[in-house]
Amino acid sequence: MPYTLEQLSDLEDIKVLKHRYFRGIDTADWALLDGMFTDDVHVEYVGGTYKVSLQGADNMLEFLKNSFHSQAVAMHHGHSPEITFSGPDEAEGLWYLEDIFIKFNDQTHTYGTAIYRDRYVREDGRWKIASSVYHRVMEVIEPLHEGAQYTTHHLAAHGRRFEDCTDISHLITWEER
Amino acid sequence: MPYTLEQLSDLEDIKVLKHRYFRGIDTADWALLDGMFTDDVHVEYVGGTYKVSLQGADNMLEFLKNSFHSQAVAMHHGHSPEITFSGPDEAEGLWYLEDIFIKFNDQTHTYGTAIYRDRYVREDGRWKIASSVYHRVMEVIEPLHEGAQYTTHHLAAHGRRFEDCTDISHLITWEER
Amino acid sequence: MPYTLEQLSDLEDIKVLKHRYFRGIDTADWALLDGMFTDDVHVEYVGGTYKVSLQGADNMLEFLKNSFHSQAVAMHHGHSPEITFSGPDEAEGLWYLEDIFIKFNDQTHTYGTAIYRDRYVREDGRWKIASSVYHRVMEVIEPLHEGAQYTTHHLAAHGRRFEDCTDISHLITWEER
Repeated sequence: MPYTLEQLSDLEDIKVLKHRYFRGIDTADWALLDGMFTDDVHVEYVGGTYKVSLQGADNMLEFLKNSFHSQAVAMHHGHSPEITFSGPDEAEGLWYLEDIFIKFNDQTHTYGTAIYRDRYVREDGRWKIASSVYHRVMEVIEPLHEGAQYTTHHLAAHGRRFEDCTDISHLITWEER
Repeated sequence: MPYTLEQLSDLEDIKVLKHRYFRGIDTADWALLDGMFTDDVHVEYVGGTYKVSLQGADNMLEFLKNSFHSQAVAMHHGHSPEITFSGPDEAEGLWYLEDIFIKFNDQTHTYGTAIYRDRYVREDGRWKIASSVYHRVMEVIEPLHEGAQYTTHHLAAHGRRFEDCTDISHLITWEER
Repeated sequence: MPYTLEQLSDLEDIKVLKHRYFRGIDTADWALLDGMFTDDVHVEYVGGTYKVSLQGADNMLEFLKNSFHSQAVAMHHGHSPEITFSGPDEAEGLWYLEDIFIKFNDQTHTYGTAIYRDRYVREDGRWKIASSVYHRVMEVIEPLHEGAQYTTHHLAAHGRRFEDCTDISHLITWEER
């Protein structure tokens, strides 16, 4: 069944919402991320060595601020959206992530992919992320690359200072590797 | 000339078709891939060390099942679609691929890019891939990275078991490197 | 406010413009790039070790021809567009770049990301890039990877021959690293 004009417009808005999310986390732009999630947002990220499980926008922002800290270098790109409407103000979306996550604090260079299964709702005329669940498709952890020079590192200046990170062990569990 | 509402709707459907294709191959989701190609689909993939050349949906699925096996780790992301209509039920599409393909069976980590030139047709109301041809822009083959840990590897459990792979030397030719 | 049909059509055209740009540079397709910029286009690219600053389509093309030369291997993918209209024939666009740039001439393998802030205008019915500014989010420079084989290298045959490159030191400044 063809999309209506309103649905095509909503598709663009929902895509831009997710695009802003990715730009926001990698640049630690907390003002941009504020108001992007429903108050009771549900998040579950299943990686190869970690599991994030949390509820609520406040927890989500605290989780993000602790992850995108000054000793992290991050790239998160969401590709290949497959969005379907479940109502006039509700939609579901699949995205295929590619990410790089370098942590100077534990001298690792991780890269991989994941499939997101999101749910979006429109509240007061604005699309928000109501639920976001991903499972990894591939995840590779390498030592920092020999001879690498990190010539731009945005989070060093803009991320939460590593030494100011809080304890979020109730939101994320790490597995032995 | 501006796009009509129906064309914009079709553009979304065609993009989602290709998005599903990429998700389908990397996760070995054969049910998802089933019905995505026309019966007589034409495929030609020209890499730096291989050439795939085949006709027909059955050959395509057999080629894919043999490629995305349990010793492969794969990422295929299609970017930058340029889609043009050649009729109400026909379109052509360019995509710019980025891929990673790790093969434990020959201890290689390949990454690169390619330009796809596809043709799509609508059959019984559903867009399908009628032709897909790509040429590599860059291709780099490295040995497995030293110290790498493969902490998520979806195809290990979901891809065809490597030892069950069939002979598809009539579909793909490998060159010396 | 929902997008109009004309705006949705324009969004597609603007995205395709940028998609063509990325395909054009990585494949050294100068015919494709011709006519994509306004005559007085403004460009500013701020990397970790370089700053490009130029005005005018001729300078832009000369900069590109010197950058995408026969000893370079390049991937530029623009993701996550956030496009807003500032008038019927004017728009602004954010894009989130991922790139790889290998230079055999100085034995480096650079990869990173950047945020583009573009301005587009419609001239004689065709969208063009009027301004393009990016700042790096991450940039990593590595030595060429040990054991890497470059099995497809499109620019070797299609890029400007390295020995024919001209002096563009008035357009780009390099910093010590």
